Formats: sequence, structure tokens, C-alpha cells
Amino acid sequence: MKHVIWSLHNVNSIIDDVLAFLSCEYLPTKTVNIDEALHKYSAQEVYSNISLPPYPKATMDGYAVISSDCEDASHENPVSLKVVNGRIRPWMKPNIEVKEGECVEIETGGFLPKNTDAVVRVEDTTREGNRVIIFRRISRYENVSIPGEELKAEDRIISRGELVRPWHIAAFKLLDIEKLEVYDLSAHVIATGDEFLHQMAKPYTIDLVSNWLIEHGFEKITVSIVPDVTSEIASYVSRSNEKNLVTVVLGGSSVGKDDYSITAVSSLNPDIIIHGAAIKPGKTVCTAVLNGKLIVVMSGLPVAALSSLEQIVKPILSQWIGLKYLPRPKVKAILTRRITTKSGVREFVRIRVFRRNGKLYAEPIMTGGSGSIGSLVLCNAWLITKEEIEGYEEGEEVEVELIAPV
Amino acid sequence: MKHVIWSLHNVNSIIDDVLAFLSCEYLPTKTVNIDEALHKYSAQEVYSNISLPPYPKATMDGYAVISSDCEDASHENPVSLKVVNGRIRPWMKPNIEVKEGECVEIETGGFLPKNTDAVVRVEDTTREGNRVIIFRRISRYENVSIPGEELKAEDRIISRGELVRPWHIAAFKLLDIEKLEVYDLSAHVIATGDEFLHQMAKPYTIDLVSNWLIEHGFEKITVSIVPDVTSEIASYVSRSNEKNLVTVVLGGSSVGKDDYSITAVSSLNPDIIIHGAAIKPGKTVCTAVLNGKLIVVMSGLPVAALSSLEQIVKPILSQWIGLKYLPRPKVKAILTRRITTKSGVREFVRIRVFRRNGKLYAEPIMTGGSGSIGSLVLCNAWLITKEEIEGYEEGEEVEVELIAPV
Repeated sequence: MKHVIWSLHNVNSIIDDVLAFLSCEYLPTKTVNIDEALHKYSAQEVYSNISLPPYPKATMDGYAVISSDCEDASHENPVSLKVVNGRIRPWMKPNIEVKEGECVEIETGGFLPKNTDAVVRVEDTTREGNRVIIFRRISRYENVSIPGEELKAEDRIISRGELVRPWHIAAFKLLDIEKLEVYDLSAHVIATGDEFLHQMAKPYTIDLVSNWLIEHGFEKITVSIVPDVTSEIASYVSRSNEKNLVTVVLGGSSVGKDDYSITAVSSLNPDIIIHGAAIKPGKTVCTAVLNGKLIVVMSGLPVAALSSLEQIVKPILSQWIGLKYLPRPKVKAILTRRITTKSGVREFVRIRVFRRNGKLYAEPIMTGGSGSIGSLVLCNAWLITKEEIEGYEEGEEVEVELIAPV
Repeated sequence: MKHVIWSLHNVNSIIDDVLAFLSCEYLPTKTVNIDEALHKYSAQEVYSNISLPPYPKATMDGYAVISSDCEDASHENPVSLKVVNGRIRPWMKPNIEVKEGECVEIETGGFLPKNTDAVVRVEDTTREGNRVIIFRRISRYENVSIPGEELKAEDRIISRGELVRPWHIAAFKLLDIEKLEVYDLSAHVIATGDEFLHQMAKPYTIDLVSNWLIEHGFEKITVSIVPDVTSEIASYVSRSNEKNLVTVVLGGSSVGKDDYSITAVSSLNPDIIIHGAAIKPGKTVCTAVLNGKLIVVMSGLPVAALSSLEQIVKPILSQWIGLKYLPRPKVKAILTRRITTKSGVREFVRIRVFRRNGKLYAEPIMTGGSGSIGSLVLCNAWLITKEEIEGYEEGEEVEVELIAPV
């Protein structure tokens, strides 16, 4: 077991170093019915295998014509065409051949019969028995949707790592695709602490982490509560690592004393273990890789845990598995008070954005530190400070990420 | 039955007129376990009923002291205090009384004993038998989290209409709240069209609309396929309206001929019915209120349907039910080609945003019109044009809503 030295490691270097050891061989997938695919992440690329419309299609009610017959038609020189028997209804592929000087009635959505290449709108014609008089010039493909215009045979419906949205499901239905391969990601969250076993405190950070993982593409989350005993923690982490892509350990990440969880993970001889990150709160976060899978030890305090998830775990998941997370909406707002930060550290600041006299203001919620669950439910935005900046002045415009509407 | 006159009604006036008739008495809710509440919309306001920490709490390992004893301590004038027997562990409420000149060992997370009001960090002291020497000035509440700092008894955990997120669940667990009242919204989607019954075409716009409704807070979606017969459509709409908050009819919304669905809804004598909107595509959308509930007839073509949902249905749901939808991320990008729009009309343009040489560009996908499901799966952003503008020039910077990462 190697001794792990704590340091304020740069966030980007942690991510790069950890990614070098994470394996893509272990990414589990499953097949789901399309009706259950909404908001899952696709594990495959799907392309269209049809062209829509399959044949030239009328986009107006009128007459299917050979455009060269009508290219000189005008009010002064109307063209008269013979109307062939039959009426082409929507989705009908007619068995009619139209010859020069002829046309046929067609409804919106009907497919053009042989030889025709345009549709004259009914309002641009006058009917006289079995003949129709056309008063304006018609060009090729006028009022016609050409094959592939609505969907091409080579169009990509969804890419690997993309979130399934309503329009994807509609396209799958159209293409008769009934199943989709999606990621089937599981995680285990271990809360360490004698206080939880003795019911002196509630391990509610487990719920924050579990539900955060669900929001980030995980489906199966299991949890354990374990005493502050290194060997027990190690045994839980080892078993979790066999079964789950991600193991999160809450608590026991302190520097020096009480680093039960760090010692436990280290004792399993991980491929890489990095203790500490230049983030605040959450600087004690420890990131490790064992058997190509991710293990993260973080503070059990809710704000520190969320800061570690957002700043360290999210970019790792996104780059490792290729999950295409939607970016959060960002707004610019005026700081109501100064934020001082340490250079080189990314600080996770909870913000209350509000509107006054048509302007957006950002009020930092700084009270309560890492344990302040209150700051998480009261804020509607987050600001992750830049490493190279030593704070922001009152009155300065900052860009914040919204997590709820203003 | 009143005759419904079609017109390009202004979007805001449609929303206002319809909202005046929609009833809030019919908003169904249900109680769910907190573990199943993620991503549902809360139908109640929940406030904290506890203060956290409940008592002053140590945020460092050290000694709990009476600050007035140590307010003059320095390296030159160290203060010596007697260490009372006992050690306060995290979450422990000690039954110890500390007197002037005394102190007691405390761990991070332990509650301060009677009379003490500050914690001296262990690294700022030297231990000599049963006495401790303090080398620096300690102020009141130093290294102490005061009651309510992490969560106040009056803090609002969640408001009505808010989406349940991971931090809310963590807070509910902390507060021992096991149940939450959430909205229980149901909708019925009716696709009209003989072509669907005769299996000539697939009613895939049903899936687009159903899944869009799920993304917007609806849980129970039922669907029907009905022929192009006014009386049948009316009977389906009437039965759906009895059971569901929202009824969507796809198809039969044309102007004049083939307006089966408009005639059907009109025949039910709704409180209000508005046919037509100044949007493109989707201008034939018809919005009605019957028994205080919403009925929307829209084109069965996917892009027209989505344009109607986004421009008409979404703002109505948000204001009627009070659902606090997360805003979409917006980015500014340079148009790769001109968009011409009609003044007074809000156009729903599908956009492909891409990055080139560090700049964001917005490529409008204009092909295929209302039927182009291809444009919906190929785009990663939408642009809803402003009514007062007659288009945008190539090279102009526009703000678009992202629906997928760039």
C-alpha cells in the first residue's frame, strides 16, 4: 500500500490523469423498447434507412402535371389539360401514367404519378368538364416535396452518448425501430460514519449524490452505511468496484487524521489515486481508478460533495463514457457583494439571482460553509470561479449557471 | 355551434385569452414517497421545521472555551485553562458545564457545552497535563457554526411548481419528510387520419407530442387514433376532456376544407375557441377551453406540432399550472445564411450550431417544411424569430436556444 500525499491538485490534471486509467471496455449497455427510451443515453449511432418522402409528394391540393406543359401558362395564354380519371389521395402511390397534355387530381400528401413533376394549386385553375385551365406558369417541383427532403436515407437520427429526446422517439417510430441500445450505468454510494450507524445523524448526503448520479445518466444506485473502520470500508469498496462502474465514498477523506476512506482505497492498490483538488469546498476529494473503474472519496458534507461532483466527477463521466450532457443555461448578473477567492482554486459559490428594475443581480450565499444544505435549496444559480482570478468585486458583472428559473 | 373564423392571432393574446378560461380547480395532485419524487413538480410549499445546527457546533478539532477567558491571549501573554474531563465527539450533546478558567476537548461536529462560545484549534494550543495553554486571541463564535447557519427553521425547501432536484431530496431526508404532494397531470393525444387506420402512414407525431408532454411535467399520456369523421373526433375529445387536463388533437386543423377536428371541438361548445396563430410552421393551431381544461388542435406534421407546443402550449402550461420550467441554455452565433420571415409572425427555425476557428455559427435547416422530422433530429438549437423583425441577415449574430450540446 502506497502512502497517498495530499495536495491541491489542479482540476484539469486530475481529470486527464484519471482518464488515462479508466477503461472503456467496462461500459455496460442494455436494450430498451423505444417507448421506454426517453431521457436515456444512446449507446449506439442510429441512421435513417429510408428517404422521406419516398416519392415526389404533393404539398398542395390540385393537379399533378408535367411542368413543361405549363411553363408558358399565364392569364393571357392559359393552358388547357385533359384530366385523367382518378384522384390521388394522401399516401397513395398511383398506378396512373400521365401523358403530355394530361394531368390528374391530387390531394396534399399524395405521391405524384409517372411523368408528372409539379402540382398546380386548385386555386390557380378553372375546371371545365374533363379539362382544366391553368392560368400561371408552373416550374419543375413546384408544390412538390422531393424524396429525402423530410428525411434522408443517410441522416443520423441519434449519436452515441446523446440523450434521447421526443423527436428521436418520433423518428424511431417512423423508421420502425423498436429497440435501442442505451447505457446501463450503475453506482454504489457508501456513507462512512459511526454517527449514522448510531442514528445520531442522518446520512442525507447519500441522497444528494445518488440523485445527482441519476441526473447524470445512472440508473441503478445502491447505498451502504459503513462504520469508520478502514478494513470494512476497503471491503465495501472492493465489492462495489467489482459490480459498479462508479463507487462513491462519503466521509473519511480528511487530510491526515480520520482519513479512513483514503487509507481503505489506497490499500486496494488502485492504478492511480489522487488525493486533494484545487476546489473549494471539497478540496479533500480523492479520485482513484481500480480495474478500469472509478472510485471517488469525498466529504460527507453536502456542499463539498456537490462541488466535487460538479467539478471533478461530471467532466470525468462526460469524457470517459461520452455522455453528452446538456449545458446549463447561463446568465450575466451584477454581484451584490464581493467574492474573494484564492488564486489557483475553483470555488463553487451558491448564488441567488433576482431581477430588480429590469436588471439581474447575483447575491452570493456564503453562510454555513460545506454543511449548508440551506444554501443549496435557497440558491437558483451557481458560480464556479476561475482559477486565475482572485475574486470578484461588488457591482462586477459575472456569468452564473442557472439551476432553476429566476 | 358557432362558426370559428380562422386568423393569424397574436401569440400573447391567445395565451391571455385562453388563460382567462382555464380553471385551477382541476389541477390534480398525488402524494409520492420522497425516493420517487426526483424530477416531479412539487404541488406544495415546504418549509424547514428545524434549525441546523440545532446547537452551536465545533467546525474544528480543539477545545471548547469561554471566549472572554481568551480574548487577550497571545504568544507574549498565553492563557492557561483547566481541561475538564471528557471529550465531545461529533453529534454529541454534552452534559458538561464549563466554568470560567476551564475548557473541554471537542471534535469537529461536536456541540458546544454549556457556557462555552468558541473553539480553539488544537494547533493553536499546547497541552500540559490537565491544562492547555492558548497562544492566540479567540473571539466569540470562532470555529463555531451557530444554530441556523446550515439551515434555518423558516427556510423554504421547495416552492409550488418547482422541479424536485437532488438537493431537495437530501433536505427532505434531513427533515424526516417522507412524502411530497406533486402534480399528477394527464393528457390524451388523439391522432386523426384515415391513413393511419389503413396503415398507409405512421402516426409518429403522437410520440413527439406525448414525449414532449412528459418532458413538461405530464406523467400519464394516453393516445387514440380516430378517423377523419367530425362526430367521432368530437366524441373522443369530449370523453378525453372529462378525464384529462389537456387534450391534443393532431390533424384536421386546416383552414376551410378538412377542418374536421376544428368543427368537432367547436361542436362541443367550448368556453373559448381560437383558430390560428401568428406562428410558422403551425399557424393552423386551434386552442380551446372546455370545462376549464385545455384542448389544442394542431397539425399532424412534426415540425408544425412542435412549433405549436413550444410557442403556444408551453407558456400556457407554465402560467396556468405554475410549472417552473428550466430555461434552455442560449448562445449567440453567427448566421451562415439569411432567414426571411413575415413581420408579425414568430417563426420556429431549426438551427445547427457549430464551432469553427473559435467562433460559433448558426446554420438554419430550412428544407422539408413542416413534415421534416429530419430537421428536428439534425438540429441542436432552435431560433424563434421576433414578431417585429422581417428576418435576419447572413453574418448577423443571433441568439439561439440549445437543445443539445454543440
